[in-house]
Amino acid sequence: MTVRNSVAPRAAVEVSQYDIETDVLVVGYGCAGAAAAFEAARAGAEVLVLDRAGGPGGASAMSGGEIYLGGGTPIQQACGFDDSPEQMAAFLLAALGPGADERKIVHYSEQSVAHFHWLVDRGVPFKPSLWDSPAWVPPTDDGLMWLGENSWPFTEIATPAPRGHRPTANDFGGRLLMDILASAAQSVGATAQYDTYVTNLIVGVDGCVVGVVARRYGKELTIRARRGCVLTTGGFVDNDDLLAAHAPRLLGHTKVSAGTDDGSGILLAQAVGAAVRHMATGQVGISLIPAFAARGMIVNEHGRRFINEDTYPGRIGQAALFRQDMNVWVVLDERGYEQVPERERWGVRPTHVAESAAELDELLGMAPGALAAQIERYNESASRGADVDFHKSARWLRPLTAPLAAINVKAGIRPPAESGDRRGTGASVFTLGGLHTALDGHVLDLDGAPIPGLFAAGRASSGLHGEGYISGTSLGDGTFFGRKAGTAAARNT
Amino acid sequence: MTVRNSVAPRAAVEVSQYDIETDVLVVGYGCAGAAAAFEAARAGAEVLVLDRAGGPGGASAMSGGEIYLGGGTPIQQACGFDDSPEQMAAFLLAALGPGADERKIVHYSEQSVAHFHWLVDRGVPFKPSLWDSPAWVPPTDDGLMWLGENSWPFTEIATPAPRGHRPTANDFGGRLLMDILASAAQSVGATAQYDTYVTNLIVGVDGCVVGVVARRYGKELTIRARRGCVLTTGGFVDNDDLLAAHAPRLLGHTKVSAGTDDGSGILLAQAVGAAVRHMATGQVGISLIPAFAARGMIVNEHGRRFINEDTYPGRIGQAALFRQDMNVWVVLDERGYEQVPERERWGVRPTHVAESAAELDELLGMAPGALAAQIERYNESASRGADVDFHKSARWLRPLTAPLAAINVKAGIRPPAESGDRRGTGASVFTLGGLHTALDGHVLDLDGAPIPGLFAAGRASSGLHGEGYISGTSLGDGTFFGRKAGTAAARNT
Repeated sequence: MTVRNSVAPRAAVEVSQYDIETDVLVVGYGCAGAAAAFEAARAGAEVLVLDRAGGPGGASAMSGGEIYLGGGTPIQQACGFDDSPEQMAAFLLAALGPGADERKIVHYSEQSVAHFHWLVDRGVPFKPSLWDSPAWVPPTDDGLMWLGENSWPFTEIATPAPRGHRPTANDFGGRLLMDILASAAQSVGATAQYDTYVTNLIVGVDGCVVGVVARRYGKELTIRARRGCVLTTGGFVDNDDLLAAHAPRLLGHTKVSAGTDDGSGILLAQAVGAAVRHMATGQVGISLIPAFAARGMIVNEHGRRFINEDTYPGRIGQAALFRQDMNVWVVLDERGYEQVPERERWGVRPTHVAESAAELDELLGMAPGALAAQIERYNESASRGADVDFHKSARWLRPLTAPLAAINVKAGIRPPAESGDRRGTGASVFTLGGLHTALDGHVLDLDGAPIPGLFAAGRASSGLHGEGYISGTSLGDGTFFGRKAGTAAARNT
Repeated sequence: MTVRNSVAPRAAVEVSQYDIETDVLVVGYGCAGAAAAFEAARAGAEVLVLDRAGGPGGASAMSGGEIYLGGGTPIQQACGFDDSPEQMAAFLLAALGPGADERKIVHYSEQSVAHFHWLVDRGVPFKPSLWDSPAWVPPTDDGLMWLGENSWPFTEIATPAPRGHRPTANDFGGRLLMDILASAAQSVGATAQYDTYVTNLIVGVDGCVVGVVARRYGKELTIRARRGCVLTTGGFVDNDDLLAAHAPRLLGHTKVSAGTDDGSGILLAQAVGAAVRHMATGQVGISLIPAFAARGMIVNEHGRRFINEDTYPGRIGQAALFRQDMNVWVVLDERGYEQVPERERWGVRPTHVAESAAELDELLGMAPGALAAQIERYNESASRGADVDFHKSARWLRPLTAPLAAINVKAGIRPPAESGDRRGTGASVFTLGGLHTALDGHVLDLDGAPIPGLFAAGRASSGLHGEGYISGTSLGDGTFFGRKAGTAAARNT
């Protein structure tokens, strides 16, 4: 964590000279920054990208690499799925709400096939095959996966089609994606400087953002941006003060970031009048194995189910954190456990095993009979082949038979060894709220008017999302609106 | 709703003359504004209070009048309760979290007995008698009521003591309270002007707030505040754009306000760099009769209980809206219904009556057997005298016997006739988030530093609250921190 300076802007009249000059300055070199830099440079602007770390990547490079695309991409078609921008938008509007940005979602969905081709043209490989089972990150190089589209209630809202597009990599594809995007930006002439942390914006007398003040190895630099600044600095999960002010439920969990998501870009823009949206919201990676959950039950501290176990696991995570305070267990039987191949288990083993439901109840410290009653009800539904309570697909319904196992989600995936002996909370989180932006990436002020010279994309901005989240929408809206912001900044002469 | 101007501040150098001058300007004449005006005037400052309505009152005057006070007030003592600031703070920290402001809570609790005396000295009457049953607003003039302190989990967190202090009025006491506070402000020389809407702050070259621009009957006025401006403009529940940006779950419900809580003060302050906190949070008045709920069960769309029915009803409301999407029913039997005196029923009658649990299940459209199983489990707990699932007090536990009745909360309290035939949502809401303020009422900027000349209190500020709410904390922190803000502004010479 960097010790915070004042985030107040510097007046241009106080800057006697600039150490560096460029047309478009991009602050933050994750996927949004790379996309912005590429488009701005391709449009003929001189482009400089800054990152506070030693190279490009950010949280994007640590991600699974899924990109939410649809509306009828060649990969969808090759896998036998019809899709349309309208169906895609209907799904996203429901899945990312309440509070989802309808205008952005419609625009993003309409342009999604074109954005797919843009990614392919940059060199991002997608294999035309489907991974067809609940997973966070499939252990294959299949190019397509479901992200909840085939689960209730979305089956009643939009025609199901898988839209999780995965760059061809086994497991996590974010590093590959970032390498390709950074190379693309470089190939059209964008330059980059690292270990450089932007501390203030520089503002002209007319309120136009004309550059930034930065720090590199303790030395202050002034950088002029003749056409515009694009803030792609990421969210604020690494800033506990901001979490306490806006999203206290996200405090104390594992932070999904490269350690640099301190909200600096959000604050710098707010200090020149920018509005923010949905600062309380967050993605919740719940540490359970979706393939186990789909084959069993997810229950709360009262032994009750609260969601269909076959839905997008991030939706389960949000329900678990925001509605169940992370007091959540996965219950399954031996057959369900054995059905999940070793490579999908991520080393997770049951934390409790019992010969009967009543014994499991007791082991988990639940109220007597609570879990046993739920298992009985679940098994009745499973026998009938219809989950009347939570509408899990019949594909995953089967009565559970003793011996039974439970996995305490808080112990579900062990923290990495280097984290010491700190116990997990069962959740890894990042923030979804951020700067209010127009469709072209302009940062908007409290009146809803563009702030001249200032653009943003990625998780520094409030993107498609309201409260909800679906994997692939961060790399998706980051690259898509990053492109828009880079284009708009380059034109801003 | 007023058509929005730009909220950007006016530069003092552009203001050639002021139409009005005063020492301390208070914007908004609810309880916080009245308390600020009183203290500023008593400290010797010339004080002008503006309100956009035709007189003082705001949402405060429409409220039940409860003020959250404790730590050992004379009313608590007369009713036989020991209390301490520490126990009060422990309760509030738990009840108003996550994200509650510990420093403000500790300060508020330490000063609570003194604040009680301040209210009494102004003329607010409190009768030393206790209303001892769950209620939103008791139908008596009892001066003390429980606000969840004697319900789980708070019984395990702090020594229970009732802290809801009620001005002596039958039913709603907010009007009485406001009349007294406005008279008090007037008695020490504070003046007021009405029908006057502040549209912009005026800021000096050093960033100090030196006055405001206002509109009255279409005419622009400039007002100089030599010592400071206090923003007590209320929350933003009347501004659907702000709700969509920050608190989309509060959209579409009945708004608890005088129609003027458009967030103007929050935006004006943000436009000069103020930080906000907890903008997603809201109080949820759930339209159920607490006395019915305590004697029965509250269930969700799955027929399951989700909270102890004897807790503070606002806590039930937040759980219902934020965790159950307002799909909530109260289930009770004839004996429970008859036990509630007519005057406490507010005209509410069962929406469904059935001869058996199974029939009620079907009537409510729940999954077969869901409600019947819950009733069976509840009755088992009640027979044992211990609610193992949700810890409702044994005082309210009794097995429910057929015939059974259900009240759909969405139809629980009819909207007033003048609202036309619009169906209720079951919730009436107001916002809790707002400006970040110091203990002395100074508005803080994004760096956490005071903005010179600018103060705030009441629901324009983020007060004691994180996500949680307890009745009486708005009139409580509004009057308390309103006093602080008025005092600090008067000293700001």
